[in-house]
Amino acid sequence: MFFKQLIEFLEKGESGVKKFSLIDNPDIISAASLENASENQLSFLEEGSYLFNQFSDTKASALIVPLNESIIKKATEKKISWVAVTEPRIAFAEVLEKLNPEILPKKGIHKSAVIEDNVELGKNISIGANVCIESGSKIDENTIIYPGVVIYKNVHIGKNNILHANSVIHPNSQLGDHCVVNSNAVIGSEGFGFIPTKRGWRKMPQTGIVVLENNVEVGCGTTIDRPSVGQTLIKSGTKIDNLVQIGHGVHIGKNCAIASQVGIAGGAIIGNGVILAGQVGVANRVKVGSNVVASSKCGIHTDIEDGQTISGFPAIPNKLWLRCAANFKKLPEIAKALRKLS
Amino acid sequence: MFFKQLIEFLEKGESGVKKFSLIDNPDIISAASLENASENQLSFLEEGSYLFNQFSDTKASALIVPLNESIIKKATEKKISWVAVTEPRIAFAEVLEKLNPEILPKKGIHKSAVIEDNVELGKNISIGANVCIESGSKIDENTIIYPGVVIYKNVHIGKNNILHANSVIHPNSQLGDHCVVNSNAVIGSEGFGFIPTKRGWRKMPQTGIVVLENNVEVGCGTTIDRPSVGQTLIKSGTKIDNLVQIGHGVHIGKNCAIASQVGIAGGAIIGNGVILAGQVGVANRVKVGSNVVASSKCGIHTDIEDGQTISGFPAIPNKLWLRCAANFKKLPEIAKALRKLS
Amino acid sequence: MFFKQLIEFLEKGESGVKKFSLIDNPDIISAASLENASENQLSFLEEGSYLFNQFSDTKASALIVPLNESIIKKATEKKISWVAVTEPRIAFAEVLEKLNPEILPKKGIHKSAVIEDNVELGKNISIGANVCIESGSKIDENTIIYPGVVIYKNVHIGKNNILHANSVIHPNSQLGDHCVVNSNAVIGSEGFGFIPTKRGWRKMPQTGIVVLENNVEVGCGTTIDRPSVGQTLIKSGTKIDNLVQIGHGVHIGKNCAIASQVGIAGGAIIGNGVILAGQVGVANRVKVGSNVVASSKCGIHTDIEDGQTISGFPAIPNKLWLRCAANFKKLPEIAKALRKLS
Repeated sequence: MFFKQLIEFLEKGESGVKKFSLIDNPDIISAASLENASENQLSFLEEGSYLFNQFSDTKASALIVPLNESIIKKATEKKISWVAVTEPRIAFAEVLEKLNPEILPKKGIHKSAVIEDNVELGKNISIGANVCIESGSKIDENTIIYPGVVIYKNVHIGKNNILHANSVIHPNSQLGDHCVVNSNAVIGSEGFGFIPTKRGWRKMPQTGIVVLENNVEVGCGTTIDRPSVGQTLIKSGTKIDNLVQIGHGVHIGKNCAIASQVGIAGGAIIGNGVILAGQVGVANRVKVGSNVVASSKCGIHTDIEDGQTISGFPAIPNKLWLRCAANFKKLPEIAKALRKLS
Repeated sequence: MFFKQLIEFLEKGESGVKKFSLIDNPDIISAASLENASENQLSFLEEGSYLFNQFSDTKASALIVPLNESIIKKATEKKISWVAVTEPRIAFAEVLEKLNPEILPKKGIHKSAVIEDNVELGKNISIGANVCIESGSKIDENTIIYPGVVIYKNVHIGKNNILHANSVIHPNSQLGDHCVVNSNAVIGSEGFGFIPTKRGWRKMPQTGIVVLENNVEVGCGTTIDRPSVGQTLIKSGTKIDNLVQIGHGVHIGKNCAIASQVGIAGGAIIGNGVILAGQVGVANRVKVGSNVVASSKCGIHTDIEDGQTISGFPAIPNKLWLRCAANFKKLPEIAKALRKLS
Repeated sequence: MFFKQLIEFLEKGESGVKKFSLIDNPDIISAASLENASENQLSFLEEGSYLFNQFSDTKASALIVPLNESIIKKATEKKISWVAVTEPRIAFAEVLEKLNPEILPKKGIHKSAVIEDNVELGKNISIGANVCIESGSKIDENTIIYPGVVIYKNVHIGKNNILHANSVIHPNSQLGDHCVVNSNAVIGSEGFGFIPTKRGWRKMPQTGIVVLENNVEVGCGTTIDRPSVGQTLIKSGTKIDNLVQIGHGVHIGKNCAIASQVGIAGGAIIGNGVILAGQVGVANRVKVGSNVVASSKCGIHTDIEDGQTISGFPAIPNKLWLRCAANFKKLPEIAKALRKLS
C-alpha cells in the first residue's frame, strides 16, 4: 500500500495526523521496529523513546513521528517519508491493523464440536473443532470459539468474544461483550477454600460465580477462581496477562492492567486504573486503591491508598523503597562502620 | 428450605449445633456473605472474623453464629433467626452443600471419547466429550472425567476422582481415591533434568512416576513433574492451589496446603501439615519440617525445623523478619545517623 | 540385562568408561537413586554428591562411579559391582535410556484428528486423537503430536519434534527440529501490548511471530508471546521449564536453562548459556549477558554484564548479596546499636 494511502487511512483514525512528507511515496509492505526496519517498511518513533538514538540509522522507507521539528528535519534530510501525528503509537497500531487484516475463522459450528441440549447460540458464531458446550449455556452473536475450548453448564458468553484454543469456562460464569480469553486460561474454577479440621482439610463449597464485564482480556494460562458465595468480578476494560492467579471473591476495577505471574489472593479488592507489574502478590482481603501502580515483585499486605506508587516486600512507597534498596547494598559497610564506632 | 429444616439437617452434621432461635422460621433460598446477604439468605459469623463490625448491618434472614451470648443477644434484638454452633464455618459449608446440590455429569462414556485398547474402566464412570485415554490405563469406579482430558499410557486413577476439563495425566501416574485434578493441570510430565555438556544440555531421562495418595487436590494449571528415578509423591489430604510447580522427586507430606504460584524445586521434602502461602519458593532438596508455615513470597533455601513460622528471602523466623522488615524501611535514616556519627 | 552387557553398551557411549568390576555380574532390572536402590538395581555416584555419605548403606547391586580410588575400594569391599567412568551422570542417563526404551505412539493420523485443507505433513508423523491443525501449516517428518494439541494457521513445525497433549501453537509460529513442547504450553499467543488512552487500553496489534530454533524444550503451561512486529526468538539448545512467561519480542540465546516460574518481560535480550533459577523476573528490554547465572527469585532491572552471578531484588552480585542478606537479619541489632550510640 502506497504511503499516501496509509496517510489517508490514518486521517480517518484517532492518532491526530498533523502533517506529512511523501518524498517518493514508498510502497509500504509491512511494519517493523526502527532498528529492524528495511526498505518498504514503515516504523514509528515516540518522544522519549529509547530508540531515539537509533533513529538516524534506520533503513525504514517511511516513519510515523511525533510533531517534533528536529525529528522531522532529520527524516527529511535522510529522504525518509514521514507523517507527524499527535499519537505515534496509536497511528502505528492503526497501520498494523491495516497492513495485517485479521484472518477470522469460518462462521458456523464445526462438525466435531459437541453442543449439548439446551444451548443457545447467537448469529454469526464460529465454533471450532472439538469444542464442547454443556447444557444451559448461551453464546451471543459474533463470538469466536477456537478448537478445544470447554464451556461447562449455564455459562453466558456475550457478543464479539474470542475464546482461544483449549481455554476452559466453568459453570455459571458470565462474560460480557468484546472479551478475549487466551489459550489455556481457566475461568470460574473452584476457589481454594478449605477448613482445617482434626481429620484434615474440609472443602468449603464454592457456589459463587465469576463475572467478566465488557472488554476484559485474560491471558494464556491465567486462572480466575469462583468464590464460596457471591462473585469474583473483573470490571470493564481490565487487561490481564499470562499465568496470573485471581483468587475467589477478588474484585478488580475498570481499566486495570495486571501483568504476568501476578497473584491476587482471595477477597482482595482492586480499584480502577490499577497497574500491577509482573510477579506482584496481593494478600487476602487487602484493598488496593484506584490508580495505584505496584512495581514488579511487590508484595502488598496492607491496604494501599489511591494513587500510590509502591515497591518492595512488604510494599512501601516507591521512592522510599529505592533509597532503602540502595542502602541494602551497603549493609556490609554499614555494619562495619558501626562495629568501628562501638 | 425453611430454617428449621436446615437446622435439623445441621444437627446430623459435624458443626455441633448448640441452640437456635427460629423467630419467623424464614424460608432460606441461598447463602451469602454477611455484608452482601439480603432477605431469605443465610450467612455466618465466626469469632474473630473481620466481619464482626458489619454484623449489625446485615440484611440476612438467618445466621449461623458461634456460641457467643453477645452475638446471640444482638441477633435476637434484630429479630434475625440464628443457630449457634461450635464450628460456624463447617455449618456454613454444610448449608452451602445442602442448598447447592452438585450437578454431576451423566454417567457413561461420551461417544466422542477415544478409549484405546486395553483400558480398564470401573462402574458408574463418567467420561466426557473428546476425552482420550491411552492403552494400559485403569480408571476406577465413580470417577468423573470432564471433556478434553488426556490420559497417557499405564495411568491408574482410583475411585471417586474428578478430573476437570483439559487436564493431562502423563504415563504411569498413580492417583488414589477422592482426588480432584482441576482444569489444565498437568501431572506426571517430564522433570526438568539436563546435564551440562560441551555440546549443550543433555536430557536426563525421567523414568520415574508421580503418585498422588487419597484426597489430594491439584489446582488449575498446576504442574507436577516425574523424576528420573523413583517417585514424586503427594501424600493424602494435601491440597494444592492453581499454577503451582512441583519439581521432579519432590515429596509432600499429609494434609499440607500449598497456595497459588508456589514453586517447589526438585527433590525437596515437605513434612506433614505444612502451609506454604502464595508465591513461596523452595529450593532443590531442601527439607521443610512438619507444620511449618511459610508466609507469602518466602524463599526457602535451607532445611527448616518442624513447627517454624518463616518469612522473607532467604527465609528467617517470621517474628525476626517482621522486625527486620520494619528496620529495612528505616535504612536511609540509619545510614544518615551513621554518617553523622562517623 | 546383565551388568556386563550394560558396560559394553556404555563403552559405545559418551561417559568415558575407564574400568569396572563385575563381581557376580548382577542382572540389572532397573535404576534407582543411591538411597532407594534395592537388589538388581543400579545406581550412580558423582564427585561432590550430597549422597556420598549414604554410599555405604546402598543396597544397589551395581554402581556407576567416578574414577575415585577410595570409592572404588569401598564398592569392592562391599562386593558391589561397579563401573568407573569420567562422566557418571551421563553414564546414568545412557543406562536409563537403555533400561526404559521410550514407548512411542503409533505412526499415522488418528481418525478423530481435524486436519484442515492445505496442511503439509511429512513422513512418519504421528498425530493423536482430537488434534486440530489449521490450514497453511506444515509439519515435518517424524514429528509426534499428542492428543488435543491445537495448531493455528501457517505454523511450521520441523522434524522430530514432540508436542505434548493440549499444547497450543498460535499462527505463524516456527519451530526448528528436535524441539519438545510440553503439555498445555502456549506458543505464539498475542503479546500483552496495550496503549493507554482516555477511553481505556487500546490493543497494539501483535503481528510478529515466535521462532524456536532446534533442540529447544518448552515446559508445561509455559507461555511464549509473539510481538507487535518482528520475532520472539529462542535460540537452539535452550531449555525452558514449566510455567515460565516469555514476553513479546524477547530474544533468548543458545543453551540457556530457564527454570520454573521465571518471567521475562517484553523486549528483554538474554545472552547464550544463561541460567535463570526459579521465579526470577527480568524487566522490559533489559540485556542479560552471556553465561550469567541468576539465583532464584532474583529481579533483574538493569543490564547485566557477561559472566556475572547475581542475586536479590534488585539484582546485585551474588557474593555481595550474601553478605547483605546476612546483615539484613541483624537489622534490629544494628538499629539498636545505633540508638545506643546516638
